[in-house]
Parts: sequence; C-alpha cells; structure tokens
Amino acid sequence: MAQFENVSVAKKANVYFDGKCVSHALTLADGTSKSVGVILPATLTFTTGAPEIMELIEGECKVTLAGATEPVTYRGGESFEVPGDSSFQIEVLDTVHYVCHFG
Amino acid sequence: MAQFENVSVAKKANVYFDGKCVSHALTLADGTSKSVGVILPATLTFTTGAPEIMELIEGECKVTLAGATEPVTYRGGESFEVPGDSSFQIEVLDTVHYVCHFG
Repeated sequence: MAQFENVSVAKKANVYFDGKCVSHALTLADGTSKSVGVILPATLTFTTGAPEIMELIEGECKVTLAGATEPVTYRGGESFEVPGDSSFQIEVLDTVHYVCHFG
Repeated sequence: MAQFENVSVAKKANVYFDGKCVSHALTLADGTSKSVGVILPATLTFTTGAPEIMELIEGECKVTLAGATEPVTYRGGESFEVPGDSSFQIEVLDTVHYVCHFG
C-alpha cells in the first residue's frame, strides 16, 4: 500500500537536525498516531519516548540501537523496532523514506 | 485549521534539490490533489505544470515570479499564486512550511 487512506495530516512538519529529517504527523481513523518522513544522508542519533517501529519505504541505512555494539543494515521494505525511552544512531547511506509507527 | 482531515497521504515523499524541499502528496475526499512540505533556507527555482497556490503555514521567503523584476516577501499565513507552465525563484529566509494547492 503506497499511501494511507482516511487520515488526518498536520500541515506543519517536524524538522529535526537542520532539516536532515522532515516528518509529518498522521492520525488514522482509529486514533492511531504515525508519521511519514524522510532522513537525508547523515549520521544522526534519535531518542524515543514511546516505543516505535521504523518502517523503511525506500532507502538504506545502518542502525545501532542503544547498547548494541554492531550496526544492522536496513533497506526499503524492512523495519526495525526501537524500545521506549531509548535511542538509536542511524547512518543514512541512501535517503530514507519511512513510516514511524508509535507503540 | 492545523491539519487536513479524511485525506490519503503518500508514504513516500518527494525530495527536491538534495532535500532542500521535501513534500508529501495528499488527496482530499473530493479527489483534489494537494501537497504539504518544507523548504529549508536556500535560493531555489521551481517550475510549475498546473497553476498552483502556495500557502505558507510558517516561515518567511522572498518570491520572484517568472517575468517579475522585484521579489515579494511572504510569511506564514500568506499565500502566493503561480501560473501554470511557469516558474518562480524562492529565497527562503526562515524555513517555510507550506501547503501547495494545485489549480
């Protein structure tokens, strides 16, 4: 499915790291919150409040979760989970288009 | 209104000018196409196919339409129209969050 149907979308984006990450917040019909966004090639560290699942629509990145010693590579079509109150470092090799699902 | 309700939104963004502009395409319930996006501080030239109205949600920019000699400054809450099959130069002074309405 290339798009979400029947959602609310914020007109204003969230811009992180000087624009290296831009996302728009969505609310599904059942009240679930998600975001759609892009991360440009860079190495960034994100922190989480709620647990989240990052679903890669396109792109390639190496992700190192807090406490992990080795990065894991993810590409379009793959996902990774991040615990709540945690962080992850992401090295974007090819611009990442993602959907973030909040737990 | 801070958000669009009952729309379809593309999971994959459109990324222009090495990420200086990132947008997501929307389709409203009545079939109307719009996009929501961000333009980071930069001076860029966009071309149009269909006529469009750029509605600034936030930010500040100077816009020079094709054939104009002087730029006009626009800020959040303001809009400008661009004819079809034309172009405009935009100098973004403060990150622009926008809704693009296609004519």
